[in-house]
Amino acid sequence: MRTSIATVSISGPLTRKLDAIAAAGFDAVEVFENDLVASTAPPEEIRARAADLGLDIALYQPFRDFEAAPPARLDQSLRRARHKFALMRRLGVDQVLVCSNTAAWSVDDDALAAEQLHRLAGLAAEHGIRVAYEALAWGRNVSDYYHAWRIVRAADHPALGTCLDSFHILSRGADPAAIESIPGDRIFFLQLADAPLLAMDVLQWSRHYRCFPGQGGLDVAGVLAAALRAGYTGPASLEVFNDVYRRTEPERAAVDAMRSLIALQEQTAGLPSAAPRTRGAAAPVDLRVPPPPVPATGFAFAEVAVSPVGGERVAALLTALGFARTGTHASKPVALWERGQARVLLNAAAGESGAAAEVTAIGLETAAPTEAVARAEALLAPVLPRAKEADEAPLDAVAAPDGTQVFFCRTGHADAPSWTGDFAPADAPTAAGPLRIDHLGLTQPPHHYDEAALFYRSVLGLRPSESLELADPFGLVRSRAMESEDGGVRLALSIENVGEHAAGPHLRLQHIALRSDDIAADVRSARENGAAFLPIPDNYYDDADARHDLPPALSRELRDLGLLYDRDENGAFLHCYTLAVGRVFIELVQRIDRYAGFGAANTPVRRAAQQAHDSTP
Amino acid sequence: MRTSIATVSISGPLTRKLDAIAAAGFDAVEVFENDLVASTAPPEEIRARAADLGLDIALYQPFRDFEAAPPARLDQSLRRARHKFALMRRLGVDQVLVCSNTAAWSVDDDALAAEQLHRLAGLAAEHGIRVAYEALAWGRNVSDYYHAWRIVRAADHPALGTCLDSFHILSRGADPAAIESIPGDRIFFLQLADAPLLAMDVLQWSRHYRCFPGQGGLDVAGVLAAALRAGYTGPASLEVFNDVYRRTEPERAAVDAMRSLIALQEQTAGLPSAAPRTRGAAAPVDLRVPPPPVPATGFAFAEVAVSPVGGERVAALLTALGFARTGTHASKPVALWERGQARVLLNAAAGESGAAAEVTAIGLETAAPTEAVARAEALLAPVLPRAKEADEAPLDAVAAPDGTQVFFCRTGHADAPSWTGDFAPADAPTAAGPLRIDHLGLTQPPHHYDEAALFYRSVLGLRPSESLELADPFGLVRSRAMESEDGGVRLALSIENVGEHAAGPHLRLQHIALRSDDIAADVRSARENGAAFLPIPDNYYDDADARHDLPPALSRELRDLGLLYDRDENGAFLHCYTLAVGRVFIELVQRIDRYAGFGAANTPVRRAAQQAHDSTP
Repeated sequence: MRTSIATVSISGPLTRKLDAIAAAGFDAVEVFENDLVASTAPPEEIRARAADLGLDIALYQPFRDFEAAPPARLDQSLRRARHKFALMRRLGVDQVLVCSNTAAWSVDDDALAAEQLHRLAGLAAEHGIRVAYEALAWGRNVSDYYHAWRIVRAADHPALGTCLDSFHILSRGADPAAIESIPGDRIFFLQLADAPLLAMDVLQWSRHYRCFPGQGGLDVAGVLAAALRAGYTGPASLEVFNDVYRRTEPERAAVDAMRSLIALQEQTAGLPSAAPRTRGAAAPVDLRVPPPPVPATGFAFAEVAVSPVGGERVAALLTALGFARTGTHASKPVALWERGQARVLLNAAAGESGAAAEVTAIGLETAAPTEAVARAEALLAPVLPRAKEADEAPLDAVAAPDGTQVFFCRTGHADAPSWTGDFAPADAPTAAGPLRIDHLGLTQPPHHYDEAALFYRSVLGLRPSESLELADPFGLVRSRAMESEDGGVRLALSIENVGEHAAGPHLRLQHIALRSDDIAADVRSARENGAAFLPIPDNYYDDADARHDLPPALSRELRDLGLLYDRDENGAFLHCYTLAVGRVFIELVQRIDRYAGFGAANTPVRRAAQQAHDSTP
Repeated sequence: MRTSIATVSISGPLTRKLDAIAAAGFDAVEVFENDLVASTAPPEEIRARAADLGLDIALYQPFRDFEAAPPARLDQSLRRARHKFALMRRLGVDQVLVCSNTAAWSVDDDALAAEQLHRLAGLAAEHGIRVAYEALAWGRNVSDYYHAWRIVRAADHPALGTCLDSFHILSRGADPAAIESIPGDRIFFLQLADAPLLAMDVLQWSRHYRCFPGQGGLDVAGVLAAALRAGYTGPASLEVFNDVYRRTEPERAAVDAMRSLIALQEQTAGLPSAAPRTRGAAAPVDLRVPPPPVPATGFAFAEVAVSPVGGERVAALLTALGFARTGTHASKPVALWERGQARVLLNAAAGESGAAAEVTAIGLETAAPTEAVARAEALLAPVLPRAKEADEAPLDAVAAPDGTQVFFCRTGHADAPSWTGDFAPADAPTAAGPLRIDHLGLTQPPHHYDEAALFYRSVLGLRPSESLELADPFGLVRSRAMESEDGGVRLALSIENVGEHAAGPHLRLQHIALRSDDIAADVRSARENGAAFLPIPDNYYDDADARHDLPPALSRELRDLGLLYDRDENGAFLHCYTLAVGRVFIELVQRIDRYAGFGAANTPVRRAAQQAHDSTP
């Protein structure tokens, strides 16, 4: 299926948008009028640039407030159309989007609308142009896609068809099934956008919150499938108005957009009876489907890049937590620390700057690393080059949107060489009890929230939980957990919306959460061995007593050990945090029964405590 | 009237919030439970700190999901209440807010709700505590304020009253008139918040978009007046949940909040029949009303701080625009430049850094400068100290939220010494035609939008226009015009929400818009004299031709001179922009007939052209 995107979906001057769109692999583009008007490049130059880039200019949009006009306005509108058609010829585009009239002066008269659209199509045809008529969700008299199609059918001109837009259809709660009864060759264009499910004015929702398919809650695949079943053979074109993408570098937004279209095609291909209908001579549309997902079953390791001082501090912390330095890498300045199944790599690569520490890579267990990378690559994840000695195990990695390296591992299986074989044995493991990585908390750069969620969802098959808003002393934090089906891999992605005046080391933290079977014993022992934990205020415990009616012994233990408590309908959660080294702190957690969350209710207390700790002279 | 604010309305740890609230002059505070829970200070310390600061802790809030519970839940809720009452005693607060139950398990039974609230009030009374019951707009069974009052009346306990909240009342479209039929001594508390008129889910609206009275579109004064007429004598307490104020420094947010309460009291005092009713022995409440507004009738000057190089460039630009350097200040490095009524002061105070130029002060014409300053001071504007020689004219100034100095002037009137008298005459005026300052465009620091609008509205009596969202190549700009009643003073305030990666000299610009009677002649002459104007792309003119059906001669003149065009129902607008020096550019405008706008439709083209100009190698 050919892929397209409206220039309004990404930022930048028009020429930079085109470059970014072509680089991300799109076949075509819709030119948004305002982008052209503000461009210093004349239409001929835009046309030549698109051609050089291999981009088809598939649509010029929008032409507003045309149909169902009182006679006195019609001449003026046709004059305006002639101007636009002349401009479109200079631009080399042969299709224009006419969206349904929103003007108070428009007449609620389908026959008049059809007659005037017929006239417009005739004028367009003289210029070799086709008109695609679309129902805006907030159109004054025409807001339903099937209503727009009835008018197109009544207008009956070969240069007039309809344009479908998943947002306009789904935001009104319309059933896309009737799309299948529209002849495919009368669907001139298909625009796709998703959106989070928000209860708000549809115009505001559309102008600020649209997102790429898979980032919101609309059934975009259902619309695409219906259009294909109708016999539509044109491009799938993204049209997104989004405050975040308006601010994002266009090159990364374009890749994000293309990834969403590939994932959407995969999803659509997987729908029951999605086989495109062929109409007349049209060949069925091929959907671009990446190799199937390979489930990640757990964490192989978390890798922390450290400066010399940071490395010493993290090593001391891991030691206090019962880890042993069990291996040193054969060719790189990397040490393997282990306790039970929890593995942390310390990579002495962060230079000399103070006590720096940062999670730069994660290792995921998977049955088929090579296939996992192939899928990631098909979904536009950059595959990382790896300098590897001849006798080292293959280790395949891609880059996540925030730059985190994601390695696909097969640790300690007889059927494949294990990355652990590249480490020369060092100290013996300690006698401490079992421990594993429960989850990783990764603070994302500002504005990467939806992009990161789509990446982990499509590339790794992680399922996103509801997005939460949590208080920080100087702002709000959005946080969303992403989990593999069996819970073996869990990520907590967050972005901080905090005042610039409040900048400090407590911001942009990452954490490695380690799951213990006996957190009380582990914390006691870690404290004895010198680990420094984040102080939790007494007020928290007074409130926990009031809220949870805790048994006195448990209440006392929480206070004594500085543990936090949460509960859901399936179980309970005990956890605590070490002080951070650089950007990284360790969380210890214990899941009781089938508690499924991450203790998010305690995040505001944690963030306040971290801010308070930083501010303490 | 006593003033109060909920700690959730501003940012920071609880102790810093208290300091900021006291510094802004509030009498009392509502302690928001989450702020206490996350605080490292125990309740006794908060109590002592509030007492030291002279702050009454008037309310503890919220106590959620209590009333109309099935019997099995009641004991647990009463146990929770006992915990809270004990805590409140430690905190020294004798009133708790109970908001209407939102839980799915709550029972739709007013008698049961009343019975359980009676029981809670009895328990509270044992602790010397009063219960204020409030209807949340999204309460499950109780969402209307009068419904909440009926339950309170039925519960009939002296320790139980109602709490009114302007947001919960007005967001549901309820009529506040019925407040007057509630006995004033049964209204235990009054919370006030405004909000912009948004069509969205009321819970999201409340949690993210509440703002201080006067910043939104709700009739908050109507609620306050009704409560006063009912005989309410407690504090007026602000309770605002707002994503921007969560990020703002608490000290400035608290001042902004206090300013809104003073302006609200003034507005309320001005309502017809606002006289508070006295009930029994209660004395009527005194409203704090600032001195009356003194209209600003025009711009006396705009002052630009310049570095040596910046000063040369601005001087060259002004010269090309027909200005003459007509005066030099007696004691300061300031030159007066004039053309007609347009006066620009160049202040050589910006140090040596490159071609720096920045609008740092504006002079406003007013009939009574001293009274204008007194009003500004009463509305918490910082009055600026001024080093003045003995023989210089008095010149009174206050600081706007962004630091701009606002001077109140009486230029060239016989009844007062004029600031112009402090300038020694220099060059003679040129023969160029009349010119005046039409408006100033002031880009505000991020997150100061509502604060700045409230400042100019309350202090200067400017009327805000609708807020517009305008496209930038790398984001969105919000812009709002503020005008004096006769249009003599116009400001265009904007904030930029633009990606950090796009930082450049085209951001944070300010402009001085000069109104000409013959812009074509002025631009022609300025170009001949070497002024550099912002190049406008040809595409803009193609579009203007299509949109406006311009006469060919006008169309040609626009292209030749680089003028932009706009039209409203009353007239037309011609304008153009010089290139910027430092942060400042000059706009030339001509208003034809009674055009009332600012050419905002052309702002995206201007911003794209500025960005393109900056990016040109």
